[in-house]
Amino acid sequence: MNVKTVLLLLGLALATIFALVCVLLTRGRAPSTCQHLPPEQEDTEDGQSLVFADLTPEEMAHVVRYLRGNLGVPLVDASHAKPLDNCIASVDLQVPAKAEVLWFLDGGGARPAREALAVLYFGNQPDPNVTEYVVGPLPTPAYHRDVTVRKYGGKVPYHRRPVTGKEYTDINALIQRELKKAPQFLATCCESDGTDLAILTTAPRGFRSGDRTTWFVLFHNVAGTGYYLSPVGLEVLVEHRDLHVSRWQLRKVFYNGQYFASTEDLEQEFLARTLEVVRLKKPQADAVLGSMRPRHPPSSLGPLQFEPQGPRYNVRDNHITYQGWSITFGMNPNSGPHFFDIRYRGERIVYELSLQEALALYGSNCPGGMSTRYLDGSFGIGRFAYELVQGLDCPYTATYVDWHYLAESDTPKTNQNSLCIFEHDSALPLRRHFSDSQSFYYGGLRKNTLVIRTISTLINYDYIWDFMFHGSGAVEVRVHATGYISTSFLHGQGTDYGNRVGPHTLGTMHLHHMHYKVDLDVGGQMNFLETQDMEYEIIKDPWSTQNTIERPYLRRKRLEREDEAAFPLNAPMPRYLSFASPKPNKWGHPRSYRIQIISFAGKHLPISSSMERSVSWGRYQLAVTRRKEEEPTSTSIYNQNDPWTPTVAFADFINNETIANEDLVAWISVGFLHVPHAEDVPNTVAVGNSVGFFLRPYNYFNEDPSVDSPDSVYFSSEQDARACGANPLACLPTAAACAPHLPPFHFGGFLNLSLAPPPGGL
Amino acid sequence: MNVKTVLLLLGLALATIFALVCVLLTRGRAPSTCQHLPPEQEDTEDGQSLVFADLTPEEMAHVVRYLRGNLGVPLVDASHAKPLDNCIASVDLQVPAKAEVLWFLDGGGARPAREALAVLYFGNQPDPNVTEYVVGPLPTPAYHRDVTVRKYGGKVPYHRRPVTGKEYTDINALIQRELKKAPQFLATCCESDGTDLAILTTAPRGFRSGDRTTWFVLFHNVAGTGYYLSPVGLEVLVEHRDLHVSRWQLRKVFYNGQYFASTEDLEQEFLARTLEVVRLKKPQADAVLGSMRPRHPPSSLGPLQFEPQGPRYNVRDNHITYQGWSITFGMNPNSGPHFFDIRYRGERIVYELSLQEALALYGSNCPGGMSTRYLDGSFGIGRFAYELVQGLDCPYTATYVDWHYLAESDTPKTNQNSLCIFEHDSALPLRRHFSDSQSFYYGGLRKNTLVIRTISTLINYDYIWDFMFHGSGAVEVRVHATGYISTSFLHGQGTDYGNRVGPHTLGTMHLHHMHYKVDLDVGGQMNFLETQDMEYEIIKDPWSTQNTIERPYLRRKRLEREDEAAFPLNAPMPRYLSFASPKPNKWGHPRSYRIQIISFAGKHLPISSSMERSVSWGRYQLAVTRRKEEEPTSTSIYNQNDPWTPTVAFADFINNETIANEDLVAWISVGFLHVPHAEDVPNTVAVGNSVGFFLRPYNYFNEDPSVDSPDSVYFSSEQDARACGANPLACLPTAAACAPHLPPFHFGGFLNLSLAPPPGGL
Repeated sequence: MNVKTVLLLLGLALATIFALVCVLLTRGRAPSTCQHLPPEQEDTEDGQSLVFADLTPEEMAHVVRYLRGNLGVPLVDASHAKPLDNCIASVDLQVPAKAEVLWFLDGGGARPAREALAVLYFGNQPDPNVTEYVVGPLPTPAYHRDVTVRKYGGKVPYHRRPVTGKEYTDINALIQRELKKAPQFLATCCESDGTDLAILTTAPRGFRSGDRTTWFVLFHNVAGTGYYLSPVGLEVLVEHRDLHVSRWQLRKVFYNGQYFASTEDLEQEFLARTLEVVRLKKPQADAVLGSMRPRHPPSSLGPLQFEPQGPRYNVRDNHITYQGWSITFGMNPNSGPHFFDIRYRGERIVYELSLQEALALYGSNCPGGMSTRYLDGSFGIGRFAYELVQGLDCPYTATYVDWHYLAESDTPKTNQNSLCIFEHDSALPLRRHFSDSQSFYYGGLRKNTLVIRTISTLINYDYIWDFMFHGSGAVEVRVHATGYISTSFLHGQGTDYGNRVGPHTLGTMHLHHMHYKVDLDVGGQMNFLETQDMEYEIIKDPWSTQNTIERPYLRRKRLEREDEAAFPLNAPMPRYLSFASPKPNKWGHPRSYRIQIISFAGKHLPISSSMERSVSWGRYQLAVTRRKEEEPTSTSIYNQNDPWTPTVAFADFINNETIANEDLVAWISVGFLHVPHAEDVPNTVAVGNSVGFFLRPYNYFNEDPSVDSPDSVYFSSEQDARACGANPLACLPTAAACAPHLPPFHFGGFLNLSLAPPPGGL
Repeated sequence: MNVKTVLLLLGLALATIFALVCVLLTRGRAPSTCQHLPPEQEDTEDGQSLVFADLTPEEMAHVVRYLRGNLGVPLVDASHAKPLDNCIASVDLQVPAKAEVLWFLDGGGARPAREALAVLYFGNQPDPNVTEYVVGPLPTPAYHRDVTVRKYGGKVPYHRRPVTGKEYTDINALIQRELKKAPQFLATCCESDGTDLAILTTAPRGFRSGDRTTWFVLFHNVAGTGYYLSPVGLEVLVEHRDLHVSRWQLRKVFYNGQYFASTEDLEQEFLARTLEVVRLKKPQADAVLGSMRPRHPPSSLGPLQFEPQGPRYNVRDNHITYQGWSITFGMNPNSGPHFFDIRYRGERIVYELSLQEALALYGSNCPGGMSTRYLDGSFGIGRFAYELVQGLDCPYTATYVDWHYLAESDTPKTNQNSLCIFEHDSALPLRRHFSDSQSFYYGGLRKNTLVIRTISTLINYDYIWDFMFHGSGAVEVRVHATGYISTSFLHGQGTDYGNRVGPHTLGTMHLHHMHYKVDLDVGGQMNFLETQDMEYEIIKDPWSTQNTIERPYLRRKRLEREDEAAFPLNAPMPRYLSFASPKPNKWGHPRSYRIQIISFAGKHLPISSSMERSVSWGRYQLAVTRRKEEEPTSTSIYNQNDPWTPTVAFADFINNETIANEDLVAWISVGFLHVPHAEDVPNTVAVGNSVGFFLRPYNYFNEDPSVDSPDSVYFSSEQDARACGANPLACLPTAAACAPHLPPFHFGGFLNLSLAPPPGGL
């Protein structure tokens, strides 16, 4: 190789290097992946919130082991226990008494003993009963105390216990046996041999204490679709009260408007051709009513949220911090999500915020439908909060948290990713003003909200439980209803009870009423309740006294007693109602939080009803009572199966005690009347089907706390709004020019299912 | 150079090239900028929506030129016209009659003539009056018709005209002159010479027709901050009724609870030391109450929405298409945003959806406050819809639209980017179900919503007007109130009318009530109104007749007459209320849209009030009337300054005509009582201060239309949810791995301001 060639090659190589460097420098401007910053607010709390933490699987296992060894009676695993057996129904956290917790949190006192609440079904005893034990101290239990009588004023009779998965399985077997006695009828009405029908429970189960006689509704079942929309017109009444399963009986059969003593009778009438049969084709997967399979291929992506610099909230164990908020979360297997010790800027606002109950009460001209008044807490609002689907149930980049529980089994179970936490850009100003007079400026702040969500699937329905924390110091609680509607077979005057939504399907009207407990502690534990409303006064104008002015004025009132503070559902309420502290803010007004309710509630069950007391929380849109350790919940899981002698009757909490300067609790009912219509197929949509309430600061601060937000935007006509230094919005094009890094999609929700027997479909 | 060296260099160069290529290949994997796809739904509409289009600046100019040349009277530009002059007050679109439009849109008829509505103030006439002309055809007018008498049943007296910017300027001069007569007082009370105070108008202006006597409230004015929070305690009553400005007079002075005949009297009493003066420091920019300047530097970015593949909606002229929706939008300078011909899947649902009025009615123990009942339409809800700030008022990547108007000037003006359109990820499922029984599957759809927004700044307040279109076929209308509160100087029993929010500031209680017109055409133009509600019937259980069931049932009712369909504010309404077509859906139910209202309205002004008829739309939460071309709006811009003889009185629309199978309009009032509290400083927050209504399909379809959405997600336990083919959510990590490209921040909102005289602050 001569030097010239080599030099030429070198020249070429240098040119190539130059070109490559140029390309590199240009390419270097290609957006990079978003770099996460650590959240501003470090979680400095020293594990205090663990005082409210749900039990760990290990703790549950310890309790089970302790109970097995120390109760002195044989225990059968609840997943296969018969009514005549003893079993552990559930093990959950026993939340320590408030006084103890406050002494620990605020007074430097000792950490309260960690204890579990174990519920046992004692079927294998001379006097079968349900017993609740407090077991402690965890992690290594050394004692158990029977708290049943203390909690409920007496023993809990065995018949009040919820129906277990095993009991449903046994009922299913009975129904299957009985259906075999009507083969010709089933083949004709439903193209079925009875084994392929879905069977749906109703509740309550009878008319008086001790009854355990349940209507079950039968549906065509198509895999992959909600069978709830395909009733075949057949319903059966099963008595399953006896502790010997072999003595259970089918008591009645309903078909298409007629009642029969048995499936044999039904078959006979069918064979005698005296029966009017509606021949239903077996639905096919593709054409079935209520299919959710996409009909069109996916198109372009819709708007997506991402966090260019990572999440700005902090989650550690059961504790969340976010822009001044400090929240302790958890879930009760029965009553669902709850929160403790909600603080804003270091001050406690809410000691406890917890869902209590969800009632679904139906009308129909079919026996199952007209009997149905589900008390979902008895089925398990927390237990059936399943895995959330990332990117649909919550934003893709949300933080997902697992939840563990022990129910109807001696082995702890996990609902993975069943609670999500995210900051949401609501695409709305939290506040803003554009000044067009005197001086020109613009100021505002985006409404970013911390959302904590869980979604419970209660048989057909899905309740979306949202708890939101705003930059203004407000808490927003909201529930959306979605999922499948419940239906009846359309016959006779069915449309007096709803709308027809399919060839033979009546969408049955119902109420969704939910109850929440809100133990507010506003500027201290002792509060009073103040109402404010407007009136008009008719005055002469003060400057001429010649003319009349109708002038609004403020009517302030302090409510002194519980009876005054119990506001009936659907009756007018004072427009402003606040929990107030005796301490004034800078301007002399009592530091307060206002309760604002958004609800479209239906009519409460008439008080004359024999089961009304079991849902008597539904009488009131809002009731404020003195907080008592003995009134921890407004309902009980035992109310569903014996609503005629309610284990907890909320109405008893209201006994006209004074509520001035006491530790108070607000009990809030929200809900709506749902008359299903064609558009509830396949699923009820969230739009419009949302109710809830706000807790809003009302003279609690001296000014809106959001003035301290680092997200504040302000620029005047004297500034260059395009300069990133003057206006943070001008920094966005650069700061957000990075690509979100989404982890691969994960879903394990179905894996856990075989373990958990569902409450409804058999 | 020897060969070895050169070879060595060549070797090094080749190694460098190799390294660079490696770097390049790795870097090549850096995320790219998001590639936009064209929207799915092409806008195939052939300019039909232009029949509703707001006037272009060129059209306005043509009309002005025509009027100048053809009215035969001298016209002065309104920006400097005196009361004794003639001027063009406004030129706006004259919306063609519905019959004509429908004949054009649906019947293949001719395009209606394009016409303008010109409002003229004739001060320079023997009988001064306001005259409204229809001018056409555009773009080259050839005729004008006086429509005043036809529209209002008589001439519009001159005294009813809104106050112009010029009139405010002249009043300002008068007040300044008068203030000069109390120099010692002003120096002492306010550290002021009177020229540095902000002056805020109130309205109405007197007590009987013909009055034009206005209380003006004085505030300390600090540039860059809302002066509305800093009243100095001084208010003045100005009579400006006379057409000769020189004859205007200051009638009364109020200071700190006392009334004086003049500023001289005030000064004298001050000098005589018989006056109780509250000495106020002049507020300093940094410490002033209500400053919105950030107190902390910006921190990390919050969540941000982006559209990885670009917007999925289409905006052309005044027409938007989005996932089956077709919407024509526009803005009236007075009444604000309006929409026409809202269709879903090709079928018209709403012919007109328009804001009508916003009332703010105050209580106070100061004369200005107690007089204030702003009818914002008279000030200009559309006209004061200013530029939206990208990334705060609307998402950064929203589509922003300019709006042109002609008001109080002969020259068209533009509010740039004053309407925004975006698709919002509400981070919520629209519908979802998780199946835990019979078969395991999950199905759902994200709640993405098309939002159309404009924000009006009416003096101190900012109203956020949202119109939302959901994948379920529902329309949602919502208004949030934010901006500054209005205040009075705190004295005496001030807190009977609000809360103290600053050292000398009373946040005065008030109502915000808004009125909307909704001309629904559901399955055709002719509709009827159906109500549905629940009751309980007490029956014996049909299977044993031994027991009692309280069973909900549905009470359906068709309303026959307007009087039945007028539902008083705050009175209970049937829980379901729908506009229904005589045509049934597949299941035999009338195709309907349901109206669902969310409102926290205050008490309506007593009917005994001499101005009540001017706001008599506020009597009703909902009133349904027969649609009439002669009842286009529920209010008039002339109602503000002569509410005692309202030019339009909505109550007159309700005259018990039959409403069965007619073209019907729903008139909806929403609002809330606002008792300002400390947290309204600096600005009222949007959280909780939101009201509105839904229009929801109710048996309109045969099933939920969202089943056809390409965004649907469904997977069963038999599928691999992690596979992009089976589950579109699993495609997100790849599809969204691109960086949003945000254009540089743009804001020109202050540039237009000097042109537009504000209504409030002088």
